[in-house]
Amino acid sequence: MRNLTLLTDLYQLTMGQGYFNENRHEETAVFDVFFRPNALITYSVAAGMEQVAEYLEGLSFGEEDIAYLRSLGCFSEDYLAYLSRLRFTGDVTAVREGEVVFPYEPILTVKAPMIQAQLVETAILTFVNHQTLIATKAAKIVDAAGGGVMEFGLRRAQSADAGIYGARAAMIGGCVGTSNVYAGKLFHVPVSGTMAHSWVMNFPSELEAFRAYARSFPDGCLLLVDTYDTLRSGVPHAIEVFRELRAAGHEPKGIRLDSGDLAYLSKAARKMLDEAGFPDAIICASGDLDENSIVSLKEQGAKIDSWGVGTKLITSADLPALGGVYKLAAVFEKGREIPKIKLSDTTEKITNPGVKELYRIYDGSTGMAIADYIARAGEQIREDEPLELFHPVETWKRQTVTGFRVRNLRAPLIEKGKRVSAPKPLAELSAYFRAEKARFWEEYTRRDMPHIYKVDLSPALYRLKSDMVRSGKTNFNGEEDA
Amino acid sequence: MRNLTLLTDLYQLTMGQGYFNENRHEETAVFDVFFRPNALITYSVAAGMEQVAEYLEGLSFGEEDIAYLRSLGCFSEDYLAYLSRLRFTGDVTAVREGEVVFPYEPILTVKAPMIQAQLVETAILTFVNHQTLIATKAAKIVDAAGGGVMEFGLRRAQSADAGIYGARAAMIGGCVGTSNVYAGKLFHVPVSGTMAHSWVMNFPSELEAFRAYARSFPDGCLLLVDTYDTLRSGVPHAIEVFRELRAAGHEPKGIRLDSGDLAYLSKAARKMLDEAGFPDAIICASGDLDENSIVSLKEQGAKIDSWGVGTKLITSADLPALGGVYKLAAVFEKGREIPKIKLSDTTEKITNPGVKELYRIYDGSTGMAIADYIARAGEQIREDEPLELFHPVETWKRQTVTGFRVRNLRAPLIEKGKRVSAPKPLAELSAYFRAEKARFWEEYTRRDMPHIYKVDLSPALYRLKSDMVRSGKTNFNGEEDA
Repeated sequence: MRNLTLLTDLYQLTMGQGYFNENRHEETAVFDVFFRPNALITYSVAAGMEQVAEYLEGLSFGEEDIAYLRSLGCFSEDYLAYLSRLRFTGDVTAVREGEVVFPYEPILTVKAPMIQAQLVETAILTFVNHQTLIATKAAKIVDAAGGGVMEFGLRRAQSADAGIYGARAAMIGGCVGTSNVYAGKLFHVPVSGTMAHSWVMNFPSELEAFRAYARSFPDGCLLLVDTYDTLRSGVPHAIEVFRELRAAGHEPKGIRLDSGDLAYLSKAARKMLDEAGFPDAIICASGDLDENSIVSLKEQGAKIDSWGVGTKLITSADLPALGGVYKLAAVFEKGREIPKIKLSDTTEKITNPGVKELYRIYDGSTGMAIADYIARAGEQIREDEPLELFHPVETWKRQTVTGFRVRNLRAPLIEKGKRVSAPKPLAELSAYFRAEKARFWEEYTRRDMPHIYKVDLSPALYRLKSDMVRSGKTNFNGEEDA
Repeated sequence: MRNLTLLTDLYQLTMGQGYFNENRHEETAVFDVFFRPNALITYSVAAGMEQVAEYLEGLSFGEEDIAYLRSLGCFSEDYLAYLSRLRFTGDVTAVREGEVVFPYEPILTVKAPMIQAQLVETAILTFVNHQTLIATKAAKIVDAAGGGVMEFGLRRAQSADAGIYGARAAMIGGCVGTSNVYAGKLFHVPVSGTMAHSWVMNFPSELEAFRAYARSFPDGCLLLVDTYDTLRSGVPHAIEVFRELRAAGHEPKGIRLDSGDLAYLSKAARKMLDEAGFPDAIICASGDLDENSIVSLKEQGAKIDSWGVGTKLITSADLPALGGVYKLAAVFEKGREIPKIKLSDTTEKITNPGVKELYRIYDGSTGMAIADYIARAGEQIREDEPLELFHPVETWKRQTVTGFRVRNLRAPLIEKGKRVSAPKPLAELSAYFRAEKARFWEEYTRRDMPHIYKVDLSPALYRLKSDMVRSGKTNFNGEEDA
């Protein structure tokens, strides 16, 4: 594994020098990761926490790193010596990967000595922003397709890692496989792929190309039929080879369409395959697909069983960054929590102060999610007492729920620098996401004009925030500052 | 360095099995990398070739890779044994990084045994697509700003590599520094950064936060002034600390604005700094910038000296994939070139067949670029004879040039599997780009409504292509196929 300790913004290290000089570098700080609403996202699928855990466990400046930092000429030898011994010793609490999450929710919280908490900000955001973005995009595409989506985007990914970890995130979001062999090996996920146009072009004729492929892969043979003329050449040749395969005792898998009018071509090809006696031969489609084109194709009655989605999935093309942030929530002085808030003229940009927990409230009879609920750490939520939920800004919007079930969405990921539990197989994360998403009414998760799912604050957290906003102070300890 | 040999699409390996079974895996094939026109791109800046060279030199399946491929159950033992010994033994010709390039140009060509040429397609596209995309976006942003652009996007990058190699590409495209420490060390490029809002929030007052920072960094002190109220608090406090610094013999560097109306705030802050006797203190701006917002800010007279550009640069937000492709151009049979073409009903999608070279024609007196010229390999272009240029589709558009200079834009990158020249420092690539771009009239490179720079075909290449299109054959060897 690469050592990514230097994967940080320089200002984390200059602030570190500053805290070190002020002898405040070992004060405990608490930072939350959350993201803000975006019109293109109805719900998000948390991912990237596994890479956060790997990275934090491996955090350690090597000799070359220290030599490089020394060469910048702005760090003291004392500080560099301190950095050379630094390991991550803090705690991280996070939602699990595959969790359905919403704006403003603290999906990951770091509690660590100040200098460490700053140092790790950048990489944590990189991992969580990227994988949550791609898992979310994958979920949207899978929602549209109703399943059968394969991730085909490696060649258009923004770097090798973007392809590898993007494939990982896409699997969490519901893709059933990837073309990316590296990701297949690393994450034990299904890989798929058969032939490119170059294969067909490399034989004297399409029929010879198909026959040659069938010789090598008589079982599960899937042929790309659009190199020349899909309906006049590709599909008839495929059927010819499928008949030869069947005569030799093999059942073909199907065909792939990669260009042209996929609605028309898939319907015509389906008819041809059915009439030729291959109703079980599947039709895969690929070529610049996303959730919108898939919905449109389905509306047109396209006969597509399997979707290969590339560029627009692996780059989340319509929203290429999630924009998650990492904000100071509290510091501890002599063991006592001092909540911190970031004020702004824009109400939505004011942060939720203090150490918090994140709960999901489910209807006791249907089991369906009602609302998420952010509370101060240590608050008790009793299922046997009525709970009043209110909008965190439009506070006159209230409802009281009873007979509910409550679940803490977060659990320790890292304690005192060590990960708490072993990595989970991707299939488990993906199944978890599917199960949890099924606990949301479709009204909350549909792509267009969804009901906005409620993310409310506990009365205690609301009071703390209101008091801090009124005081105009970012440093709030219940009394006036000097 | 990680072994990225498995960073490929599965179909490259299944086709490899097919070629292996047909005993055609060692036939020589030639593939070109090129991209198609996009309305958002006027010119592109080639990048990623260095990673291609590293990757190809390191190509080698490890024992675990082979074991993994075996576990997929679709490859023969003979083939796996062959793969375990496989190294890249082919040739790669490419434009240099930092070259100004245009659609349809073969910016990189692979000539290698078929199985190798297919295997490496995916990773080559990943590297070249990503870095060319980001270098191009950086160039657009630098064009708009007129210089002084720093890359600040790591936390929003699509993975660690996207941040690291994105920073690299941004430097080639003209950025003067990055916040990314890992990239700074790896590529020996300037890193920059001072403080975040959390620093300011972590002190009892803004003034104390600024003073503490100035204690640690008395020289080159740059203060973030927008945590509370930029003009009523941030700038006055910065000026107070700057005066204290100057009294102690230190000159401050300046301030950073990260939110609010950057046009208004920068003008007001400039006035305050000037009046306080700090005309040399710079103003940095950051916060969701791109080439459009920078142009707008400059039009409004914003007084900004330095631009920190994050999300929209590191993801190329308005165009998150370049869409470069890798197309079969020729195979060799018994040493004889058989050109290949990909036909399409869309004229622009028909590929240029055969082994080619790419030239740039410069005006002999001004030294400015006139047109690029794609010819068949081996064609001579004589500077002492008139050269007729004609549009590759609208062939009646013609001009004859004389007294020109011609330059082959490509050079060997890899020969027989080994790189030909040592990696170049990024500063050299960036300087090369700057110098080459200066040889284009602004009409060709401006953002809006540019003149379309000509990319023409030689008469011999045009004839070959026309003949192949007319024949309707992808396999063209000058005679009718059987």
